[in-house]
Amino acid sequence: MKIGFVGLGAMGSAMAPHLLSLASPLSVHNRTKAKADFLIAQGAEFAPTPGDAARGDIVVSMLSNDAAVEAVVFGEDGILAALPQGALHISMSTISMALAEKLAEAHKAAGQQYLSAPVFGRPDAAAAAKLFVVAAGPEDALAKAQPVFDALGQRTFPYGAEAEKANLVKLSGNFLITAVIQSLSEAITLASKAGIDKRQYLDMLTETLFTAPVYKTYGNMIIEGRYEPPGFTATLGRKDLGLVLDAAESLQVPMSTASLIADRFLTLMATGDGDLDWAALGLLVARNAGEAPASGGQ
Amino acid sequence: MKIGFVGLGAMGSAMAPHLLSLASPLSVHNRTKAKADFLIAQGAEFAPTPGDAARGDIVVSMLSNDAAVEAVVFGEDGILAALPQGALHISMSTISMALAEKLAEAHKAAGQQYLSAPVFGRPDAAAAAKLFVVAAGPEDALAKAQPVFDALGQRTFPYGAEAEKANLVKLSGNFLITAVIQSLSEAITLASKAGIDKRQYLDMLTETLFTAPVYKTYGNMIIEGRYEPPGFTATLGRKDLGLVLDAAESLQVPMSTASLIADRFLTLMATGDGDLDWAALGLLVARNAGEAPASGGQ
Amino acid sequence: MKIGFVGLGAMGSAMAPHLLSLASPLSVHNRTKAKADFLIAQGAEFAPTPGDAARGDIVVSMLSNDAAVEAVVFGEDGILAALPQGALHISMSTISMALAEKLAEAHKAAGQQYLSAPVFGRPDAAAAAKLFVVAAGPEDALAKAQPVFDALGQRTFPYGAEAEKANLVKLSGNFLITAVIQSLSEAITLASKAGIDKRQYLDMLTETLFTAPVYKTYGNMIIEGRYEPPGFTATLGRKDLGLVLDAAESLQVPMSTASLIADRFLTLMATGDGDLDWAALGLLVARNAGEAPASGGQ
Amino acid sequence: MKIGFVGLGAMGSAMAPHLLSLASPLSVHNRTKAKADFLIAQGAEFAPTPGDAARGDIVVSMLSNDAAVEAVVFGEDGILAALPQGALHISMSTISMALAEKLAEAHKAAGQQYLSAPVFGRPDAAAAAKLFVVAAGPEDALAKAQPVFDALGQRTFPYGAEAEKANLVKLSGNFLITAVIQSLSEAITLASKAGIDKRQYLDMLTETLFTAPVYKTYGNMIIEGRYEPPGFTATLGRKDLGLVLDAAESLQVPMSTASLIADRFLTLMATGDGDLDWAALGLLVARNAGEAPASGGQ
Repeated sequence: MKIGFVGLGAMGSAMAPHLLSLASPLSVHNRTKAKADFLIAQGAEFAPTPGDAARGDIVVSMLSNDAAVEAVVFGEDGILAALPQGALHISMSTISMALAEKLAEAHKAAGQQYLSAPVFGRPDAAAAAKLFVVAAGPEDALAKAQPVFDALGQRTFPYGAEAEKANLVKLSGNFLITAVIQSLSEAITLASKAGIDKRQYLDMLTETLFTAPVYKTYGNMIIEGRYEPPGFTATLGRKDLGLVLDAAESLQVPMSTASLIADRFLTLMATGDGDLDWAALGLLVARNAGEAPASGGQ
Repeated sequence: MKIGFVGLGAMGSAMAPHLLSLASPLSVHNRTKAKADFLIAQGAEFAPTPGDAARGDIVVSMLSNDAAVEAVVFGEDGILAALPQGALHISMSTISMALAEKLAEAHKAAGQQYLSAPVFGRPDAAAAAKLFVVAAGPEDALAKAQPVFDALGQRTFPYGAEAEKANLVKLSGNFLITAVIQSLSEAITLASKAGIDKRQYLDMLTETLFTAPVYKTYGNMIIEGRYEPPGFTATLGRKDLGLVLDAAESLQVPMSTASLIADRFLTLMATGDGDLDWAALGLLVARNAGEAPASGGQ
Repeated sequence: MKIGFVGLGAMGSAMAPHLLSLASPLSVHNRTKAKADFLIAQGAEFAPTPGDAARGDIVVSMLSNDAAVEAVVFGEDGILAALPQGALHISMSTISMALAEKLAEAHKAAGQQYLSAPVFGRPDAAAAAKLFVVAAGPEDALAKAQPVFDALGQRTFPYGAEAEKANLVKLSGNFLITAVIQSLSEAITLASKAGIDKRQYLDMLTETLFTAPVYKTYGNMIIEGRYEPPGFTATLGRKDLGLVLDAAESLQVPMSTASLIADRFLTLMATGDGDLDWAALGLLVARNAGEAPASGGQ
Repeated sequence: MKIGFVGLGAMGSAMAPHLLSLASPLSVHNRTKAKADFLIAQGAEFAPTPGDAARGDIVVSMLSNDAAVEAVVFGEDGILAALPQGALHISMSTISMALAEKLAEAHKAAGQQYLSAPVFGRPDAAAAAKLFVVAAGPEDALAKAQPVFDALGQRTFPYGAEAEKANLVKLSGNFLITAVIQSLSEAITLASKAGIDKRQYLDMLTETLFTAPVYKTYGNMIIEGRYEPPGFTATLGRKDLGLVLDAAESLQVPMSTASLIADRFLTLMATGDGDLDWAALGLLVARNAGEAPASGGQ
């Protein structure tokens, strides 16, 4: 099975190696070729254009936003024009419902298959092939993609035939993570200013009611004030909440917490901290409480 | 060891039975005597006044708010006047930092001991002796109280000598629960209006990133729209967030999420739904999205 | 001077008559021809398509949102294709900065002139030719448009050569109006539940610190609970705040109050009240305080 | 008529001189005697204690918060103990409804009269005797107080027999001012980052829809970034919004905007800017948009 992989950022570069043994060969594309060198050294072929990576059975794309996906699919030498009849494009990026619908239609019109299959997990989970895959699209396409999902993740959750629903599930999950970060930051800062040991406080929380790993992961970053290097930036967090709020607007669901947090990310961006990890919501809470220095960018 | 127990509400009545074997005897007080009958049938003595329950080695109080605690401690035939020199009052209610400080001072001035020891867990956890106890106060008092904590809970977290810190920890934990309820309600309503099966969506969340039981407990209530009978009411939720915000004001910690959620509870109260479970934040989110009928009280 | 007018909604039908004496002739277009009859009776010509209205010296468009403007300009038989070289399109609709930029570029590329000239004022102000016009675009175009502005409004505020700045000024002004409605609703509801006479309270406010007519206009609607017929609907309010928030995102300006109010409009829409006047933010505040019946749409 | 005046802060020192001709004599008290010197030079007597100022027909108190009022009324050598039977205490401070009720009861029980009569206007309005007086209490007391109100203000608004209603009206008015400051700050910052001249923008607003002086006063401070010296501090603004939110809680009126702005004031306080004018809400908006330097206190 010939597989292509487009997009070797923090996530993509941790995912693509797991497809080396499954593909024959694995064809990889990235705007900056140097980032593909470690894969080429392991037997992958370099595809000079997204379209070159798409001339097989399956092409996976993993990019950072709608614009990047639109460019590699619809742009010159793009996936849409190159993908053979009946071949499959698996879009694993976190993109808007609107773009997912557009992709599904375009590929269908071209006699190709399309799946939305965004993932939950940070780069370390991707490296360990422990991602959770949320997938939606035609049933036969889901069946064909299963070996790819199995190679990349620990479990796949199918969400039916309409591709964009997988994207909504992913986006809403990211929103829930931001709500954990924001509320945990407020609680930790309150405890800290009351003279309570932050480490002891967080340990108690994560050993009692809040045992989900997400509380431990982000709680540690918050109490250590460790927001670099980013696993996922505040700017990307704002992008995702923007997509959540777009969906909320068209579905008419007022989401007060999401609106509030979106504004917090915007503050980080406007004050020069957009490139910090999105856990830096905690930095902003601490700053507003006089517990952290103001932005160095100021 | 002679132990008294004051307050047989939803929580107290599930906790007190666990002290029957530890105490000799257990003396119980409740405003409405009938609620004590099941304990008397098991060997407990009825104390006509809070003070009567306090004439032993330890008296535990478990009441619903500051006013109730103030009444049983400082009121006529109250605990403060009756508690013997050197005896211990363990206040397990969720009360304000300010009242905890006042209680600690008053008991100390009277030659008595005082601990704040609020708990995490709903009535079913109390019935199973699975509470988490958060305790603070003088070290020797903590040691004396340990058998009581062991009888009531699965684990005790000590927070040093200043009693009010235990109360802050408890209050901030309750805030974190409300943040889970509110954000989960927004996400579930969004998914639901997008045509995604709510049960499948919740199961996916709780089997991947949000494995903490609190997501499952409240998620189930939200997707089933089951807000009665209440384990803990919206009105009590508002009370606790009010205490969180009081602490946040005096410690100068802006807590945007807490402020937002406090207003939501107030809406439930003003529209006649204050007696629903505090998970009814989810009812309000659904209503505002046109997904649930408006208040029957309207 | 041959003038065309496209869009005879609540605003447009109150504005167009003022151009009858200025134009020779006035050519009017509306999707539903019947709405143009009163103008035809006064000497206007009916233009079957937007393009037909644009075959003169100036064409004015006054429509309810971006999509409608895009349709009449770029659509079949649209303004762009029909407007003569050197002729002027004055867009008075409240549209996005992005669309204004696109219009300016398209008209320039076609050798035509373009101005953004949104207005402040409700239909009654339009009928009285008392609008405030906020205009931006090339200087010679502004000069050519001045007689039109003088016929429609009491005053024109020029904002330089970049058309989209006029749109931002208009949008931000609409946001300020919504902030008045929302805050006034909260204050009036508080006073009302305290037993203070709402009329007396509002009169005091508008005779002391809050003398701007906007407080009187909306305050009266709020205290009378009079949200029909709408001068400007909640749905349109949400649209405008959406455009404000889009601009705020791209300019990186966190606007907490705007975000909060946008969610309130979404609630009105989701619960079946999107067609009420945007002052119905006050209905929502009253409902949440248990002072008004829930939505009839429920 | 012997009149006493207690509290010579920014407001009190601008008000008291207007009573010199009405009183025979005017007896003034202030904690720091030096602040009374300019009045003594004009014929006033110095009262060493609040009680000394209260041994006449009327005593006016003008202090900065509940605690200060409680101290001068109920404290040692306080007003309550010294005020003659039938004499009148006019409390013009911005205090809580709860304290106003307590004062009304205490004075009534002591056979004295009490009015709540808070004012709208900054120190410059006080100096010009242009305050607006909002008064409530027994009718005969209101009649007796009228000459005092006439000397201090341009107009009096009576709110019936229950004193605390005047306080609610005042507090809610202050909330409305903060909503103007906050929303105007957001709009001005948006316009500014879009490259629009702030002065021109503000002038347009205040000459069209937002003609109330409050827009001009605070708009000028915002566009000039002039927050010192304070006419009324952010810390006092937080105090007043705290009292508004207390009233909103007990009356069950969710006030989202008030909650949001209260948190903003808390941020100013926590970051060392509590002593700036409350218009510094605008500084915070600008900071969060990267348009103003972070707090010097950081």
